[in-house]
Amino acid sequence: MTDSVTARITGQHFINGAWTGEANAFNSLDPVANAKLDWQFASASQSDIDSAATAAKSAFVQYRAKTPGQRADFLDAIASELEADIEAITTAANRETGLPMARVQGETGRTCNQLRLFAGTLREPLEPKFVDLANPDRAPLPKADSRLSVLPIGPVAVFGASNFPLAFSTAGGDTASALAAGCPVIVKGHPAHPATSELVTRAIEKAIISCDMPAGVFNLVQGAAPHVSTDLVTHSAIKAVGFTGSLKVGRILADLCAARAEPIPFYGELGSTNPQFLLSSILSANAEQMAQTQVQSMMMGHGQFCTSPGVVVAVKGSALDRYIATMSETLAALPASAMLTPGIAATYQAQVEALLKDTCVELVAQGQSAQASHLTRPTAVRVNADDYLTTPELQQEIFGPCAVIVECEDEAQMLNIATELEGQLTATIHGHEAELIQNQQLIEAVTFNVGRIIFNQMPTGVEVCHSMNHGGPYPASTDSRTTSVGSQAMKRFERPICYQNMPAALLPDELKSGAAKIISF
Amino acid sequence: MTDSVTARITGQHFINGAWTGEANAFNSLDPVANAKLDWQFASASQSDIDSAATAAKSAFVQYRAKTPGQRADFLDAIASELEADIEAITTAANRETGLPMARVQGETGRTCNQLRLFAGTLREPLEPKFVDLANPDRAPLPKADSRLSVLPIGPVAVFGASNFPLAFSTAGGDTASALAAGCPVIVKGHPAHPATSELVTRAIEKAIISCDMPAGVFNLVQGAAPHVSTDLVTHSAIKAVGFTGSLKVGRILADLCAARAEPIPFYGELGSTNPQFLLSSILSANAEQMAQTQVQSMMMGHGQFCTSPGVVVAVKGSALDRYIATMSETLAALPASAMLTPGIAATYQAQVEALLKDTCVELVAQGQSAQASHLTRPTAVRVNADDYLTTPELQQEIFGPCAVIVECEDEAQMLNIATELEGQLTATIHGHEAELIQNQQLIEAVTFNVGRIIFNQMPTGVEVCHSMNHGGPYPASTDSRTTSVGSQAMKRFERPICYQNMPAALLPDELKSGAAKIISF
Repeated sequence: MTDSVTARITGQHFINGAWTGEANAFNSLDPVANAKLDWQFASASQSDIDSAATAAKSAFVQYRAKTPGQRADFLDAIASELEADIEAITTAANRETGLPMARVQGETGRTCNQLRLFAGTLREPLEPKFVDLANPDRAPLPKADSRLSVLPIGPVAVFGASNFPLAFSTAGGDTASALAAGCPVIVKGHPAHPATSELVTRAIEKAIISCDMPAGVFNLVQGAAPHVSTDLVTHSAIKAVGFTGSLKVGRILADLCAARAEPIPFYGELGSTNPQFLLSSILSANAEQMAQTQVQSMMMGHGQFCTSPGVVVAVKGSALDRYIATMSETLAALPASAMLTPGIAATYQAQVEALLKDTCVELVAQGQSAQASHLTRPTAVRVNADDYLTTPELQQEIFGPCAVIVECEDEAQMLNIATELEGQLTATIHGHEAELIQNQQLIEAVTFNVGRIIFNQMPTGVEVCHSMNHGGPYPASTDSRTTSVGSQAMKRFERPICYQNMPAALLPDELKSGAAKIISF
Repeated sequence: MTDSVTARITGQHFINGAWTGEANAFNSLDPVANAKLDWQFASASQSDIDSAATAAKSAFVQYRAKTPGQRADFLDAIASELEADIEAITTAANRETGLPMARVQGETGRTCNQLRLFAGTLREPLEPKFVDLANPDRAPLPKADSRLSVLPIGPVAVFGASNFPLAFSTAGGDTASALAAGCPVIVKGHPAHPATSELVTRAIEKAIISCDMPAGVFNLVQGAAPHVSTDLVTHSAIKAVGFTGSLKVGRILADLCAARAEPIPFYGELGSTNPQFLLSSILSANAEQMAQTQVQSMMMGHGQFCTSPGVVVAVKGSALDRYIATMSETLAALPASAMLTPGIAATYQAQVEALLKDTCVELVAQGQSAQASHLTRPTAVRVNADDYLTTPELQQEIFGPCAVIVECEDEAQMLNIATELEGQLTATIHGHEAELIQNQQLIEAVTFNVGRIIFNQMPTGVEVCHSMNHGGPYPASTDSRTTSVGSQAMKRFERPICYQNMPAALLPDELKSGAAKIISF
């Protein structure tokens, strides 16, 4: 299968419906073997970026005129084309990321589900439209007919994530929600899985043709050089950015977007430590099982989930000691493993080493020692709550299979940590119902620092549904008002429009009197 | 009445429920007489700002625990207290702004209506809540119970506008929508109407006490020095900013908000030229009446409305000549008038002078000459579409009673202007229904550059209702995704929160199974 994939990879960009560029800039890497693959790729020049942005701007005029039903058909067609080529796509993703075949197959299914969720929402909108009817007799002034709808915001630049090469990448949630909203997309292919991006783009290309969409509605630019990203977000034709990645890169791009002559929204999903608060009664009853569940969750994708549980908070005592003992035993038996890229592995190693050098941190356990520097060991450490609260470095996310257990003197100190918490994507409270009811102040404090609050479940696994929120106060995301997962993600790429006194014949269908979901006042 | 008002003005800040500060920094001004009033005011120090922000942060914990019904009662109480003191409030506003009594009385009514619209929306929410019910039997993974609601974002800084001393100021739309969302507010009093702000704050103070709200839920800081504004928006306790004012100041503050350690949303409503597109058939039929209506609209508040129609676009010819002749005659008869502040008058004079110096601009008419430099004359000029398109300065807003008539060769050139338009709060298309149907490309192009598109009506007059959008693409506003007028303005100060697997007893009322407006999946 790999050979037949190799035969198809051109390494080029996809701009305005054509494959273009010299594939001589960088190679895909096999992170498990820590070796280059044969697949070679082009790197976008400023002129390539300009061509892609100009194509998207021009396609916007046609694409925004498509009906919601036509956009839904397009999203469905992309999903079908992905499924039709799933063998090649998952082979490429598996080789480029080292993620197991079962995982990338499941992720392809999720990617298709996402596309179809947006298609369904376009066909049957969930929310009402507001219409204020005219009242010519109102005193002292007549009231005009006024109707509120939304418009797509314009071409969107998408930066996929290394850890979800399908669901958060080329045809992932950002792309699907932007296309659903009526916005053309330019994906900056992630250099950790460029062949996967190319094959996914070929599926989108087929859907563009079969659905008669404008050529520039979707563009892929490849490249590993920083200028590709900065040229893209500062291009005047780009009107919003969807990004999943590190706080460091996310903040650089967010600052560039804010400093533009015309500032644009930057939606960065940047990561999180996803604290687990363990209340006393449940911990005492289930310490060993809870430790097992924690290890299982933090080992998903070798800890490379944005919702990986990286912090555990509990009151000191024999129950927590039992929890730590089980965790230590379980972790110590685990093998070292490759990460998504050698760069991510090196950063993880450096962060864990720095953590272990901190005098207030005590090692709980590490997995089996690594045979090569790109294979990393899961790690757990313990620290006093006082030290945790006064050491900002301990509170930072370590991307990978690492957990910091924070030992509190009492529940008041747990509340203190909940209150001082930086913005998080998620946090979980583990407790029997009676002790949850006793700890409502803790729950309330946690709630105001997270985008999703969970009870007695692990945060890994983000359901793609209408009620999901995947976002949170800074630095979990750069825009806490929005979600990057679920049907509400579409709203990031829309803006309101009011039609006043518009002749009925010209009104958009969704605002015509008698249309479904209209609330009149 | 003015004497009894004078006896009540202390010139102090209102911080955490107490009046504080030495009233020795600046005076109110009577812009009609162009003379200082007796009313003297304090200027907030950095420590005052810190006290106010800290009070708001601490009040947030209590205020966010209030039910929507309690917040609604609080907003209603503010409206009632404003009405109870309307004589003093409108006397102060009239003296400080020069706006006629009838106008400030009407604006007080609108301010109360706004407060009550948010109260009503809190009591009867219009939009559904999404609930995904658990499915423990789903394969391959069980589905968790997941419910989506919103949380208030935190303390909000509000910068009122000079041109609406009530409806867009101390208890105006930004304050009302932030309080409705559950956010404490710090108003930076506008130095053009500080006594009005003080009296309005006294009404809010009474409502805080009668509704048993936390003292720091509303704070007023006075000051004319730039550091008051910059200290406020950069304070770590502030989580969002509502601003109505100039592009220049708005952009400075927006940039500061984006550059913070924790960036925060900045909602700036910055202004607009509100172009009027006149189609040929209607212009030919009604040129004289349309010119009269244009003058009437651009003279509202002496042109100091953010929706003042400052640009008129039409095809050259005898109909447009008739329009211009009527406009010239009407304008020439109008007296010079004071503006809201001598500073605004000076800026207007300088902008009009610069306009008239431009060699491609031809004067149509000016009002009667002024007897004093703070009295300004309404002005209309004409310019060719080509010159307009290539001269960015002509496209800038001139805040005041000035209109630029853009003469096009043909409809294609009109479409070109519609396409190249900078972001606008509003634009109007004037046309008979048949010619509107023929000009759908023009309408579509205009729509994508405005927040509100109007047919055959003037843009002045912004209805406070559910379907309003008062915002638009940059530079009309800094965040085109939001409105500053109407019930949807509340959303600016909310963020989503997902509750996963939360025990039913702990769920917020609006998410409990069986609550109104729930859509379950």
